[in-house]
Amino acid sequence: MHNVPDLVERTTQFIHEQVVPVEREVVVDGRVMDDALRLELQKLAKEAGVFGPLSDPRYGGLGLNTAEQAQVLEAAGASLLGPISLNAWAPDDGNIHLLAHVANAEQQRRYLAPLAAGEVRSAIAMTEPAPGAGSDPGMLQTYARETDAGWVINGAKHFCTGAQGAAFVICVANTDDGATMFLVDADNPGFRVGRRMPTMDYTSAPGGHCEVLFEECEVPDSAVLGTVGQGLPLAQVRLAPSRLVFAMNWLGLAVRGHHLALRHINSRTSFGAPIAEHGMAQALVADSEMDIVAARGVIRTAAETIDAHGPTASQSRHEASIAKTFVSEAVWRVLDRAVQLHGGLGVCEDHLVARFLIEARAFRIYEGPSEVLRTSIARRALRAHR
Amino acid sequence: MHNVPDLVERTTQFIHEQVVPVEREVVVDGRVMDDALRLELQKLAKEAGVFGPLSDPRYGGLGLNTAEQAQVLEAAGASLLGPISLNAWAPDDGNIHLLAHVANAEQQRRYLAPLAAGEVRSAIAMTEPAPGAGSDPGMLQTYARETDAGWVINGAKHFCTGAQGAAFVICVANTDDGATMFLVDADNPGFRVGRRMPTMDYTSAPGGHCEVLFEECEVPDSAVLGTVGQGLPLAQVRLAPSRLVFAMNWLGLAVRGHHLALRHINSRTSFGAPIAEHGMAQALVADSEMDIVAARGVIRTAAETIDAHGPTASQSRHEASIAKTFVSEAVWRVLDRAVQLHGGLGVCEDHLVARFLIEARAFRIYEGPSEVLRTSIARRALRAHR
Amino acid sequence: MHNVPDLVERTTQFIHEQVVPVEREVVVDGRVMDDALRLELQKLAKEAGVFGPLSDPRYGGLGLNTAEQAQVLEAAGASLLGPISLNAWAPDDGNIHLLAHVANAEQQRRYLAPLAAGEVRSAIAMTEPAPGAGSDPGMLQTYARETDAGWVINGAKHFCTGAQGAAFVICVANTDDGATMFLVDADNPGFRVGRRMPTMDYTSAPGGHCEVLFEECEVPDSAVLGTVGQGLPLAQVRLAPSRLVFAMNWLGLAVRGHHLALRHINSRTSFGAPIAEHGMAQALVADSEMDIVAARGVIRTAAETIDAHGPTASQSRHEASIAKTFVSEAVWRVLDRAVQLHGGLGVCEDHLVARFLIEARAFRIYEGPSEVLRTSIARRALRAHR
Amino acid sequence: MHNVPDLVERTTQFIHEQVVPVEREVVVDGRVMDDALRLELQKLAKEAGVFGPLSDPRYGGLGLNTAEQAQVLEAAGASLLGPISLNAWAPDDGNIHLLAHVANAEQQRRYLAPLAAGEVRSAIAMTEPAPGAGSDPGMLQTYARETDAGWVINGAKHFCTGAQGAAFVICVANTDDGATMFLVDADNPGFRVGRRMPTMDYTSAPGGHCEVLFEECEVPDSAVLGTVGQGLPLAQVRLAPSRLVFAMNWLGLAVRGHHLALRHINSRTSFGAPIAEHGMAQALVADSEMDIVAARGVIRTAAETIDAHGPTASQSRHEASIAKTFVSEAVWRVLDRAVQLHGGLGVCEDHLVARFLIEARAFRIYEGPSEVLRTSIARRALRAHR
Repeated sequence: MHNVPDLVERTTQFIHEQVVPVEREVVVDGRVMDDALRLELQKLAKEAGVFGPLSDPRYGGLGLNTAEQAQVLEAAGASLLGPISLNAWAPDDGNIHLLAHVANAEQQRRYLAPLAAGEVRSAIAMTEPAPGAGSDPGMLQTYARETDAGWVINGAKHFCTGAQGAAFVICVANTDDGATMFLVDADNPGFRVGRRMPTMDYTSAPGGHCEVLFEECEVPDSAVLGTVGQGLPLAQVRLAPSRLVFAMNWLGLAVRGHHLALRHINSRTSFGAPIAEHGMAQALVADSEMDIVAARGVIRTAAETIDAHGPTASQSRHEASIAKTFVSEAVWRVLDRAVQLHGGLGVCEDHLVARFLIEARAFRIYEGPSEVLRTSIARRALRAHR
Repeated sequence: MHNVPDLVERTTQFIHEQVVPVEREVVVDGRVMDDALRLELQKLAKEAGVFGPLSDPRYGGLGLNTAEQAQVLEAAGASLLGPISLNAWAPDDGNIHLLAHVANAEQQRRYLAPLAAGEVRSAIAMTEPAPGAGSDPGMLQTYARETDAGWVINGAKHFCTGAQGAAFVICVANTDDGATMFLVDADNPGFRVGRRMPTMDYTSAPGGHCEVLFEECEVPDSAVLGTVGQGLPLAQVRLAPSRLVFAMNWLGLAVRGHHLALRHINSRTSFGAPIAEHGMAQALVADSEMDIVAARGVIRTAAETIDAHGPTASQSRHEASIAKTFVSEAVWRVLDRAVQLHGGLGVCEDHLVARFLIEARAFRIYEGPSEVLRTSIARRALRAHR
Repeated sequence: MHNVPDLVERTTQFIHEQVVPVEREVVVDGRVMDDALRLELQKLAKEAGVFGPLSDPRYGGLGLNTAEQAQVLEAAGASLLGPISLNAWAPDDGNIHLLAHVANAEQQRRYLAPLAAGEVRSAIAMTEPAPGAGSDPGMLQTYARETDAGWVINGAKHFCTGAQGAAFVICVANTDDGATMFLVDADNPGFRVGRRMPTMDYTSAPGGHCEVLFEECEVPDSAVLGTVGQGLPLAQVRLAPSRLVFAMNWLGLAVRGHHLALRHINSRTSFGAPIAEHGMAQALVADSEMDIVAARGVIRTAAETIDAHGPTASQSRHEASIAKTFVSEAVWRVLDRAVQLHGGLGVCEDHLVARFLIEARAFRIYEGPSEVLRTSIARRALRAHR
Repeated sequence: MHNVPDLVERTTQFIHEQVVPVEREVVVDGRVMDDALRLELQKLAKEAGVFGPLSDPRYGGLGLNTAEQAQVLEAAGASLLGPISLNAWAPDDGNIHLLAHVANAEQQRRYLAPLAAGEVRSAIAMTEPAPGAGSDPGMLQTYARETDAGWVINGAKHFCTGAQGAAFVICVANTDDGATMFLVDADNPGFRVGRRMPTMDYTSAPGGHCEVLFEECEVPDSAVLGTVGQGLPLAQVRLAPSRLVFAMNWLGLAVRGHHLALRHINSRTSFGAPIAEHGMAQALVADSEMDIVAARGVIRTAAETIDAHGPTASQSRHEASIAKTFVSEAVWRVLDRAVQLHGGLGVCEDHLVARFLIEARAFRIYEGPSEVLRTSIARRALRAHR
């Protein structure tokens, strides 16, 4: 259907010619990644014909299946600002997917269409401060009570990704019938965005991870996304694709960091020989080459399964968990080696690898910490061999 | 072309019903894996329609491409005796490939046909005692001098895989025009098979790794395989596919060991709960699940590249090196965890995982130790980023 | 008190001059390590003044404290047959310690004295086939019923270390008052030694790990070791020292394997340079150097704590658990690297490192698998920070 | 001599009561760590009697030997601002050591006395931008030409640690007689401090890592530290102790991060149980416990050797290289686990572990990257087994 190699080629060209220069301004020179800059980059992506790898052509997207996304998003991930330039960055990527699968026609018109087009950004409000829901969604404390007019939500969330400047937020709240998803407009007077949290992945996106508050936040019945009480199963619809998109994006960044390191050690000399000829440097290089090929393989495996069986099939979820865990750890190793291969320069943010490493740390935790995912992976494997 | 899922299914059934019971006799009860037993197993494989995944239909093989082989050989590898039952075990697998690509018609008739049919076994005589050729083929000491009647080979080899009982041996020897491959019949009076070496992978195949001697070993011109002086490039023809076949086979064994461990911990209780519910056991399980999916991915990647570009293309060799290194280390980790999950029973050869682990150790060394392969992998990567 | 450096020096000399030649006969030439050979080696150790590092001078021992033992036993461990030559090998090491701390005078005279003198060997019967006691001693099934004449023991044990040829066995059995230790003479008609189990650590000691049976095995009241019902606390007396002795012995073997590898790569050439000059080989060397220094450090830490606070103090048990876990894994890594540095020769039992690796595998499981010990380590650490 | 346990106790108390509250202001609230704050903290340390663990009593120091320093500095390292509060932070720690061993009386009076007393700070100018000296000191490009009046230094340095606000800098420059160390006053008109580099370890000390320039920088003969041409051997005097001091300090920070994680998971619940009871969390805890005990062991080993044989003895340098490499990697692992155990909060700088991890990254590179040190470690080991 799609000429994927060509699309990958054009994405790579777009990233290196249009995004990378801006990335340097943001990472090294302190330019702020705000919505104005996002819109500027997305405009360029549209002109380059690479915008919207995750959304449907009817919304201006490319209509790629998951396996195709894997190739394009790895190319886009080569820059910290690449995925957002293509409108494939959290939490919009997952929200686009979720709305496309779950929202009714009116909700799609009102929320999905502008989101998929890059006109607005969105947020997701799931995680709560202790003793609320963290890795364990069962601990949800935010509560929506039903009224004659609809619902009234109360509760505090944090790590609300994308909140600053978002047009709307998808809020997961308990009801008397179980966890439920609500679409809340950002200008709802009962919704307040608090502090942007000082997280390690601070640089790369507008909106941040924020503390937010729902205080007597009134929403109509039409704000319910999907079915009342089905909030956690619906989160599953979003989860496997979202984990994979992260894996694709971050793998791209790891590959870029690896290539920066290769060029660096090809050009530097130490102890009488190019660093590239030192055996211990070569060991780091080879390990990263292997991590990258393996990471690409696990992503592809999961992507093909999702395309064949849908994102909520047990096998899809198993493989997406494997992909998220393996790739998040492989990316960390690759970027850590890239820093090490840069020597002292590697810990100096004049060189992008230092920033890449810091930004990547959270990926081993969000969308399921490695330990929580390993538990799921093991349980599924064990069930199959009783 | 082929109904690969069906073939995989039948291979799995064959292994578990026909080979596994014999494997237990060999590993646990001390039955000797000799040529009589090999022929018996291969006869059963032929009856099951799963014989010859590596050879051409004209020789009774299945004519699979590399990507198809990957699936079938993983299934076959589930038993230590599985690959040899299908005629896909070293060194015959590589020799079949080499002869199919390089031998002339007469050599194919005389050597390839009976080898591919399982009528005979073969050996490869490459590695030499120090200071001869080990990991570095450039250190070759065995020498073939040209005479009017052909060639006379002199030299000592060790780790000559498959030598005991082989019908012929492919010998790599230096000539005045460079390294050359010779087909030497085992009954050549100048060829002597010495001691079978006490290697850790002793159990699983007839023929062993042997010390052999070429003493004034006369062969005719027609014994030259390929071209005089082209011995090392020809070895490359054999190398990538052989590395991949090992990876496929051993991955199968790792999967089997992993599944044995899953069943074990599902059935045992400790500290008040099934071992399967202990978090640290689950961590081992999840790591092995990830290693297996990743290993399968890197094999597939390399296999598809070989099918697209041939076994000696630079990319094929790069990816086969990556696959061999990654898979040999992943297999080792998976089997080591399988032992650990068995507790004390895991180091007792009543349980197959103990033997699997011991047998697997050599795979990280033969066909290129991890360190030599990492050097190649790094150099290719670095060349691409100068 | 003791001139420990001199004792270490003499131990090293004894091992390399007297034990190593015999070790080669056993490992490479198939000589059987039986009690005759043990007695011959122990006689030589006595003549060299290095016998009995774990026992009291009144029994012919050297009377070393734990920190001193650490140095002597690392030297002794340089050979697979070293520790047993000094009478410091399982299970006698732990049984000597246990009897010295717990046995009454008559039991010490009858059991400890000949054991400490090397006149006899002993066994320990703790582990049981499923669903009995494995890593979890609480699952004990062997039962001793009290009678007018004493006790009658019934139950099956396996991994009964040292059973073949032992003079007596320490059996842990349940009673109506809880787990209890019994001293059972090997010629008790109710005690039967069954099969020696085919474990990976088969070579290095007489007595093996055996299946044994207690069938209406009658023992008098005087066979109770310590107090009825105190079997598990008494096992703790034995446990920390026994774990440390293993750590000391195996560290010695790892150091030896490492040194064999150093000499090997100093003497071999590959790709135009001594292997010792290849960066990736140097990385393996440096990692092993670090593992060895770290392992020595954790052993010393635990040994000094035991000497200061006794073997059952909480801190002693914590540090002994840390030492056992860390050292068993470090030893495995060091020996695995030693094999790898030997290349193909490393997986061939002509070279001792292959056998060393195989023998060492069980150490990560017996006396507490790494996972069980990690659980204990973590719990103690967590308790201290509530 | 010293009551070390008491000193450790008082240091711990000082850190937790006086330094930790300030640390939070710096890390979380953005208070700047400048010289005013340093002087304030050092004044408190003097009042607490814990100032100067690295310097001689004649300069107001505690006069500890290396093994004693190890205990005190681990306690001090518990806060990012702890070591500098005690005047035991780079580069002053190494400069104090160097000046104490190498400076003449006048130089000691003028430079060492105020430095050891905390009245001033110093810098070290060694590393140069490519193609100058990085890990390989042999590539030194900064050049000092001899004149009638003394020396004139020209060259650019970077990663000049402590430069902003330093009273003087120790500059390593080439002369016609080889590398030489010069004491350069910061107000020398030929010396210019440029940009503070944006390194990952930005927070924790005044002075930073800076770009500096020597431009026709005139110094008298009396500025030569030690002997002309002996700059590199003199750097060795500084190196082993400096590496160890870093190891001690950072180990302290890792221990603190580990304890923060223990308290965190003791207090949080997930999936129906305190996180502290989840097996995979316990595995992380146990691994960190082991890393810490092992790290402490290797530091102690090296410290005792330095105390016995001096800082430039071959064994001292070997063990200091091992300690620096092992500890820098263990610290990284421990802090990384501490982040992971905090879950999402761990990557948010509200919690100190996020900052600890970022700050610690450079330790695996400065004072010798792991790969360079592994090369040294391996070479020394190999030399001993030729």
